[in-house]
Amino acid sequence: MAFIDLRSDTVTNPTDKMREAMFKAEVGDDVYGDDPTMKELEQYAAELCGKEAAIFVPSGTFGNQLALFTHCNRGDEVILADDCHIVAHEVGASSVIAGVQLRTLNSVKGMIDPMEVKRKIRKASDDIHYPGTSLICVENAHSSGRVIPLTKMESIYNIAKENDISVHLDGARLFNASAYLKVKPSEICGYADSIMFCLSKGLCAPVGSILAGNNEFISKAKKNRKLMGGGLRQSGILAAAGLVALKEMINQPIVDHENAKYLANELSKIPGITVNDDIHINMVFFNMQDTNYSSCKLVEEFYSKKVKINGEENGEMRFVTNYWVSKKDIDYVIKTFKEILDVD
Amino acid sequence: MAFIDLRSDTVTNPTDKMREAMFKAEVGDDVYGDDPTMKELEQYAAELCGKEAAIFVPSGTFGNQLALFTHCNRGDEVILADDCHIVAHEVGASSVIAGVQLRTLNSVKGMIDPMEVKRKIRKASDDIHYPGTSLICVENAHSSGRVIPLTKMESIYNIAKENDISVHLDGARLFNASAYLKVKPSEICGYADSIMFCLSKGLCAPVGSILAGNNEFISKAKKNRKLMGGGLRQSGILAAAGLVALKEMINQPIVDHENAKYLANELSKIPGITVNDDIHINMVFFNMQDTNYSSCKLVEEFYSKKVKINGEENGEMRFVTNYWVSKKDIDYVIKTFKEILDVD
Amino acid sequence: MAFIDLRSDTVTNPTDKMREAMFKAEVGDDVYGDDPTMKELEQYAAELCGKEAAIFVPSGTFGNQLALFTHCNRGDEVILADDCHIVAHEVGASSVIAGVQLRTLNSVKGMIDPMEVKRKIRKASDDIHYPGTSLICVENAHSSGRVIPLTKMESIYNIAKENDISVHLDGARLFNASAYLKVKPSEICGYADSIMFCLSKGLCAPVGSILAGNNEFISKAKKNRKLMGGGLRQSGILAAAGLVALKEMINQPIVDHENAKYLANELSKIPGITVNDDIHINMVFFNMQDTNYSSCKLVEEFYSKKVKINGEENGEMRFVTNYWVSKKDIDYVIKTFKEILDVD
Amino acid sequence: MAFIDLRSDTVTNPTDKMREAMFKAEVGDDVYGDDPTMKELEQYAAELCGKEAAIFVPSGTFGNQLALFTHCNRGDEVILADDCHIVAHEVGASSVIAGVQLRTLNSVKGMIDPMEVKRKIRKASDDIHYPGTSLICVENAHSSGRVIPLTKMESIYNIAKENDISVHLDGARLFNASAYLKVKPSEICGYADSIMFCLSKGLCAPVGSILAGNNEFISKAKKNRKLMGGGLRQSGILAAAGLVALKEMINQPIVDHENAKYLANELSKIPGITVNDDIHINMVFFNMQDTNYSSCKLVEEFYSKKVKINGEENGEMRFVTNYWVSKKDIDYVIKTFKEILDVD
Repeated sequence: MAFIDLRSDTVTNPTDKMREAMFKAEVGDDVYGDDPTMKELEQYAAELCGKEAAIFVPSGTFGNQLALFTHCNRGDEVILADDCHIVAHEVGASSVIAGVQLRTLNSVKGMIDPMEVKRKIRKASDDIHYPGTSLICVENAHSSGRVIPLTKMESIYNIAKENDISVHLDGARLFNASAYLKVKPSEICGYADSIMFCLSKGLCAPVGSILAGNNEFISKAKKNRKLMGGGLRQSGILAAAGLVALKEMINQPIVDHENAKYLANELSKIPGITVNDDIHINMVFFNMQDTNYSSCKLVEEFYSKKVKINGEENGEMRFVTNYWVSKKDIDYVIKTFKEILDVD
Repeated sequence: MAFIDLRSDTVTNPTDKMREAMFKAEVGDDVYGDDPTMKELEQYAAELCGKEAAIFVPSGTFGNQLALFTHCNRGDEVILADDCHIVAHEVGASSVIAGVQLRTLNSVKGMIDPMEVKRKIRKASDDIHYPGTSLICVENAHSSGRVIPLTKMESIYNIAKENDISVHLDGARLFNASAYLKVKPSEICGYADSIMFCLSKGLCAPVGSILAGNNEFISKAKKNRKLMGGGLRQSGILAAAGLVALKEMINQPIVDHENAKYLANELSKIPGITVNDDIHINMVFFNMQDTNYSSCKLVEEFYSKKVKINGEENGEMRFVTNYWVSKKDIDYVIKTFKEILDVD
Repeated sequence: MAFIDLRSDTVTNPTDKMREAMFKAEVGDDVYGDDPTMKELEQYAAELCGKEAAIFVPSGTFGNQLALFTHCNRGDEVILADDCHIVAHEVGASSVIAGVQLRTLNSVKGMIDPMEVKRKIRKASDDIHYPGTSLICVENAHSSGRVIPLTKMESIYNIAKENDISVHLDGARLFNASAYLKVKPSEICGYADSIMFCLSKGLCAPVGSILAGNNEFISKAKKNRKLMGGGLRQSGILAAAGLVALKEMINQPIVDHENAKYLANELSKIPGITVNDDIHINMVFFNMQDTNYSSCKLVEEFYSKKVKINGEENGEMRFVTNYWVSKKDIDYVIKTFKEILDVD
Repeated sequence: MAFIDLRSDTVTNPTDKMREAMFKAEVGDDVYGDDPTMKELEQYAAELCGKEAAIFVPSGTFGNQLALFTHCNRGDEVILADDCHIVAHEVGASSVIAGVQLRTLNSVKGMIDPMEVKRKIRKASDDIHYPGTSLICVENAHSSGRVIPLTKMESIYNIAKENDISVHLDGARLFNASAYLKVKPSEICGYADSIMFCLSKGLCAPVGSILAGNNEFISKAKKNRKLMGGGLRQSGILAAAGLVALKEMINQPIVDHENAKYLANELSKIPGITVNDDIHINMVFFNMQDTNYSSCKLVEEFYSKKVKINGEENGEMRFVTNYWVSKKDIDYVIKTFKEILDVD
């Protein structure tokens, strides 16, 4: 029996179709523009976002940082939530590569107040002491499992446009957001000038993300990608898996979200467990303090029963569903959990 | 009659004693370490702060940015109030010179919550996604006219030390803080590893600020100062004025603060004017909306009567006292203000 | 009939064995350290270089820039040949990511004079005006097709060590160098503290390069790789191809070099063509001015006959052999060339 | 008796007229644009260079780095002599502040070959691997004491203009160059888009340099100067000295150069001393190996006789004349030198 892995949706292995597609992929030197599979992926991805162009990048962090580097001049100010991935989980890269000054706003699970964004915008020409704001970043779905409503995105986008500022969408989990909001990805992307989304994570491709935007932006980003070491050779191998991801997997989040709700419901029946039942996507957060069972020990016990989970963070447990976690797997997890806690 | 200038304490001209001291100053090439007056100033300044060493820098911004550059490695995270001078009025320099990632905390007039500081601290070794926090900045007195209590500074300093993090004090108005808190400057500096304070502003020296810290820090800062273009030649000219500032002017804030209170009290008697009466230093904030008189027109009218003031910012007016504004000048300002508003 | 591609060895497609290995690869989330194939590749690669550790990076440029970023502090000086890849073909990345000052030395095809290197070394502590030299870079084989003798590498390495300076080897074509020098790769790597080599190019893997060094260096590089956006997920797919490259392809350059010599010999028989017969690796340089045939037209004519070549650069033509160019293909190219020129 | 200081022209103290001018200077807050003396200096300096505008900066290094930062985008390439001040004596600042990639050309005393400059120019749009060249720097007079002929400057300027590239002149010793070339400073500045020259050094002002260029450039530089910490308050004090320097001292180099020739001639009569008699400016280089006298001991002996000199560098001694070194002082130095060597 293989492990059931609930740690994150980043752990997803490629599907069989992806492996086959990679096996057969027609490839070429993409630095020369010779890789037909990569070209197809980039065009397909651009259309999906409703943008003119797109490029493949090795990771979500690469795509976000490339966006900052391409939108901004060094020393510019960027407004964003203080708990967003760019601030919290990209090793301070924004100060190294793009060289921008972050204005981090108080946020609850990625949600920032458009009025607060407006107040923080600055024009360099207004005062010799001011840097200029050149970018606002929004993350949707947020890595806390929360989806930002379209109305919020629209407000922020309109404020940005009134001030000639660009908006970048960190859409690492774009398709989770579109599944939750029941809209096309391109509708969400309509409130951003550039979008990064991941082919890995919920879509199961092994490596890579996409950065999309208008032609001018992507052309500039292509040069910057080379500078950052992201010019790849026969990357059609990865593009082949990416195409399967985009053609066959973008509705997978609908299933994952249902499974997450099912998992949440089952967990809530276990004595001592309090589930945060406001489930937006494929992430279930719960608190197990009342079980009096150590979360560290839980990790070990589950592992011995072929289930991988992460320990508590800030007092909360997180289980994440994905393509490789079936409803039957969830039943096994619940049953095992009860056995470990010795409840029924 | 000369202008009375209430715009800021940055407008202060040098005193006659400073001009004399500059005239007579013994100087040399400070890059060679040959300027005796500069050496004296740096030693005097270090002692005043209770630190091992100090160096002269051309401006407060230079001193703050040199501190960031010297304390931090590129990509490190710096925690500070989102309305502090380093964030708000230094043109985004922190992302250019030091290359650090700012974590800006919600702040009311420079005041940040030590517990919030604690929560934001990160260790690079804890998670591959984390940058490390290497510096916390505090500004005292804050440029909003507010003084941070010593107990807050102590809390932040202790949190920093528990986490092996440095604290930099932006003490552009250090002597205003010490005057308000009724403690020696060195007592405030005891809660910081490095301090920048200005010789200009309330102390009236024409150009320059001081960065103080321990020997190792200042030795590294001296090299970095050269890189940033702050290695000066016969700078003893400026040091001479600085020595007068430190020897004769550091109690001037006491007078300026009294004058500010007097000014506030008189202003509050004018119909339609609401004074923020929580006066810490030499700055008086008030609201004149109820006078129904335009602040722009006020600036012009005052100018024609030989008084320079700034217009409203976010609905507030600010008058700043300094060495060159006597009690008699304040009486003239009040009288003129009443005439302009046509009240008595 | 498929194209014969002589433009570069970067155009090499993966071999069938690589495709199979990728198809079957056991993978996991490498950011979690869970990818067994990647682990195997990194260990295998480290041993091949005779170093303690190694990490996979998306490209040669990524690996070189990661090395600069990890070896150097910002503002440090790096000594290297003015025609090396880092200077010439990495988009100025060294000034953006590592933030170092390049001291470019006059070079003939990558060869720099160890005595000149020695003269350019500077210690920051020697003079307040000096940055410190912290790294010397050597490229072997050089992208001009030239191999640097081991004695030169040894001299430079010894000079570096006497001055406590690191040496980075850009070994994009390391196995071409080792084939030419008839030594093990680890012997060349013995004269460097870090090595980058490519799995793509002559070794035919589709994507990726390796950075190797001691444990401390690689541990620091792993964090920096994340910052630069090179933390990948199920990258074992690529590692699987990389393992085939290292286990089965590192002697391929021997064949490629022989083919290059054969090609050179045949080309030299064509009237009007002057071949630079000092062939070190898989690159043949020649001059076709005396044929009075336009190089642009040659590119077109060859393309119509299913052969891809690049046009003249600085008056020189370059043909590159690789795994996908057989001796029979060379015969076809020569025959076609004669037909185009209408000679026999 | 005061010391005679031959170490550099950076050791020059302000003249009496400068001290008087500083004493009486009308000043204001230059960040507010309120300093009349500074305004006068900047306008006077711009006219002297034949440029539209100019700003005061704290040092020559500050001015050069501000020029790089203002002309270039980060990652751009800058072509310059490998022995120029920006490369050799500015602590690697170009990689920190401007963030540019240096292409250092082989140089003999600041002289670079215009054809070599031309060959090194790159356009970013030509190749995805290329950064773009955006600036060429020339230093005149060079700190080796050498003046670059106008014809060379013209050639380089023309090459730059043909390629839409800017030229910056490091004219720290501009007036030495104009004295040697017997042309107006503005004629030299005609071959550059921006010029930095020093008010200190040979002109004797205590602190400060000027950066001149067209209105657009200087307006952008003013913002960048603030970012770099060079926005000063009552800097009219320094401007007052600067105005004396520009109005009364710019012909001083003529006298200093004559004195240097006189000194060279007298030195050459001392047995064992070989003078490099190609004297362009106020610097005399000589070799004293044949005296068999230690240069270190010479420094000490001279010091005990009230003469400051520097020790040998790369086997050469350098004596520098300036305003404070009279012909009579030179006679004393020669007499003392002979006594020390015990020759007559």
